[in-house]
Formats: sequence, C-alpha cells, structure tokens
Amino acid sequence: MLGPVNHIALAVPDLAEAMARYRDRLGAHVSAPQVLPDHGVTVAFVECGPTKVELLEPWGDASPIAAFLARNPTGGLHHICHEVGDLLAARDRLVSEGARILGDGKPKIGAHGRPVLFLHPKDFFGVLIELEEVKPTSAEA
Amino acid sequence: MLGPVNHIALAVPDLAEAMARYRDRLGAHVSAPQVLPDHGVTVAFVECGPTKVELLEPWGDASPIAAFLARNPTGGLHHICHEVGDLLAARDRLVSEGARILGDGKPKIGAHGRPVLFLHPKDFFGVLIELEEVKPTSAEA
Repeated sequence: MLGPVNHIALAVPDLAEAMARYRDRLGAHVSAPQVLPDHGVTVAFVECGPTKVELLEPWGDASPIAAFLARNPTGGLHHICHEVGDLLAARDRLVSEGARILGDGKPKIGAHGRPVLFLHPKDFFGVLIELEEVKPTSAEA
Repeated sequence: MLGPVNHIALAVPDLAEAMARYRDRLGAHVSAPQVLPDHGVTVAFVECGPTKVELLEPWGDASPIAAFLARNPTGGLHHICHEVGDLLAARDRLVSEGARILGDGKPKIGAHGRPVLFLHPKDFFGVLIELEEVKPTSAEA
C-alpha cells in the first residue's frame, strides 16, 4: 500500500531565508513560493530528485504549523508524505485497523492538486504521515 | 551539489514495534534489523521506493539518539539524508561558507557502507541534515 516518499516537509519561520539557505549554501534549485490558503501555509519545493523537500511557512491566523513553530521556533522536520494509489481504500483499511485520520477524515487537495490525508502521529511513533493519491501512470501500471 | 533524498530517519523507542506497524498497518516491506555499533543505533529500512525510511533504535550506552528520544519519548522525525557526489568537496564548500559539521568533521561509514557527515541543525532551521557520498553511476555521469 505504502508508495514512494513524495516529499519531506520542513516548517520554517522565514521561508525566504530557508529558500536562500538551500539555494546558496546547498546549491539546490528551489521553486517559487505558493500560498495555500486552505492549508494555512506558504510552500516552496527544493527540487532535488524524485523526493522533494517542502518548505512550509505559516500563512494566516490559523495555520496548522503555528503550534509546531511555537514548540520549535527555529523550525524543524514536520511531516513525511507517501504516495498511495487509492487514497480512500488506504484510509478505509487504516481506519479498520484502528488508525486515526486527522480532521474530518475527508481528503483535501494538496500542493500538487491531488487529494491528501494526514494520519494521527500518536498512531505512528510521533511522526506525522501524509498520504497523497498518485495514480500509477500507464507505463507503471 | 545537493543530490536526491536517500532516506528519512525516524528515531523510535521500540524498533520491533515500529517495524510491525509499517509492515502490518501500512503494508510496507521492511528490511532485517542491523546493529551499527559505531553509530550507536540499530537500523531497519522501510523499502518504499528510491527514498527509504530508516528506523533507528538506540544501541549501547552512548547512543546519539538517546537525547532525542528523551525529548520525544514516543519517537519522531530525526534527520534527512541527501546524496552528494563528492562528500569532501561538499564539506569544504559548506565550511568555507560558515556551516558547521558535527563531530570531528571527518566522514564516518554509514549504514550503506558509504561515507557520511552530519551538518549542524542550527545552520539549517533546526533540521539535522546528513550527507552521504554516492558516486554517480556511469549511466548517470
């Protein structure tokens, strides 16, 4: 069920500074920032291969990463996102096994325009896991 | 300079339980545990594509992840490892730009039998970044 790691997300207090650090110090290509009001974040992606590094800065008054940054003011590793072929089937299987889904359990549309869900960190050793639906391409199917 | 994400490491208090959780609940294949005395950890890898999830359990009396687990008793995201083509060149460039290398600054041999170094989290928004030397194959060169 668990597909490739799509991205690793870092919560940072200053997106421009984090982007510059990746670009100038680590020599990486970083995408232009994108505001995601539904998720309460501004994001930019470090393009370093099939698995991207997602930089998250809080956006708006109710950003879901505000509490994380209050606990970790300099920033830190926030979540890991895996691709799955069928998000609703994955959710239903997880729920039947006792895992909890954050929010109302319904997929939202994520930064890549695809449905996503988050699993409860208490069910996975304190780690916040995002699942993103990525349909296999015909070449992979 | 910054190559693909080789793995994401999770520190967990109970490796067998974390392995079972990935296998049984997320349907992932997990490698056999491997003790790395030089690194003070026992590791197992979740095989979910080119970027692996590395599960780390403390080993021995002076494990470098003991302090992390004291702060995060249930476990959590510990570090992110990127591949680089030339580790010493990457280190020298980073040091010349003011970044700090953990330990004595000399590469150790990591879980894949390749040289690795860790960058100081204070230079990268609280995130612990590992660099692992992976020479490009002739097909990629």
